[in-house]
Amino acid sequence: MKLQLALDVESLAAARAVLDTTADLVDIAEVGTPLVLRAGTAVVTALKKEYPRLTILADFKIMDAGELEAAIAFEAGADIVTVLAAAETVTIRRACDAARRAGREVMADLIAVAEPARRAGEVLDAGADILCCHVAFDRQSAGVDPAGELAAVRSALPGARVAVAGGMTPATIGLVRALKPEIVIVGGFVTRAADPRAAATALRSALDQS
Amino acid sequence: MKLQLALDVESLAAARAVLDTTADLVDIAEVGTPLVLRAGTAVVTALKKEYPRLTILADFKIMDAGELEAAIAFEAGADIVTVLAAAETVTIRRACDAARRAGREVMADLIAVAEPARRAGEVLDAGADILCCHVAFDRQSAGVDPAGELAAVRSALPGARVAVAGGMTPATIGLVRALKPEIVIVGGFVTRAADPRAAATALRSALDQS
Repeated sequence: MKLQLALDVESLAAARAVLDTTADLVDIAEVGTPLVLRAGTAVVTALKKEYPRLTILADFKIMDAGELEAAIAFEAGADIVTVLAAAETVTIRRACDAARRAGREVMADLIAVAEPARRAGEVLDAGADILCCHVAFDRQSAGVDPAGELAAVRSALPGARVAVAGGMTPATIGLVRALKPEIVIVGGFVTRAADPRAAATALRSALDQS
Repeated sequence: MKLQLALDVESLAAARAVLDTTADLVDIAEVGTPLVLRAGTAVVTALKKEYPRLTILADFKIMDAGELEAAIAFEAGADIVTVLAAAETVTIRRACDAARRAGREVMADLIAVAEPARRAGEVLDAGADILCCHVAFDRQSAGVDPAGELAAVRSALPGARVAVAGGMTPATIGLVRALKPEIVIVGGFVTRAADPRAAATALRSALDQS
């Protein structure tokens, strides 16, 4: 399983500070939505240049203008851009068209979708490369976790490439391992840890258990 | 009716160039999603300072972390932030809580919502100040316009504050006038016009007809 580190921090400097102690343990560095909103795509461009070994994901959560917004991410250097599964299907398709042209990928985020397993199939048909089972930040405090959604999506689509996000920790990685996610997305467990490297090491250990 | 100018342009410089010839005709300047993705909230802060008479809207389309992301917009100087009606209701509620604390407002964007009139009521109950009937950019080329959605929402919620967006022009303003939108949102008709001031003048004239 790959580790995607969601950089939900306030600045490029803060993102660098986390990556400088964890980059060798990470596969995908996610420029999180709040960081994009604050600082724009300059962060994507800087991290792609400074950490060439890492895959860079821009968490744009595209909803309106698929081709235009995906192209902004790819031109800035992103390897993967996110689109909302809740978007119109034509928007997802156009984001995927932009990805094909650029030789990059689209992750479709199932956050807040009423019937994720059904919608996941439509989203793959529209061209998405990777699905993301994702419990909204604002629902995590109510104890909701993404394992149920991942199980439903995996059951409907046994061969799909799937990521899982929403309050993930080494303990919850153990709970989802049998569902074979390709990517586990972790944010606060690392970025808000007193020792981010120790946190990332614990995640890596959980991910690499067979 | 108020005119909201969606600044779907590539840079702060390009936004200034449009506003420098149109600001006196505009009520609300929208920092559009593609511009936020490119340049971050620095654009919001600059426009609020340079055009103090204008209401500044940050088109963040919040989907995940309502309070955090709304606070980013308000700290940057936005008067209004957008949240997706497709988001979890708790996310909308938390964005509205942040708005109450800051003395600002939330516009809930009904883009890609399956039953907009029903969802609009829930979104208002969650605290949203203004609804936005919005046909996705990627559907406009198929001839879909937002008048039908506006009619359904107005019928269900006669007293709601409503904005309308999606390929609007002086001609389509005439078609929606009877549905009493508070705000008409226009982007490309002005920003891609050979003469943006002439385009904005034509819109103003259509909006001010009684």
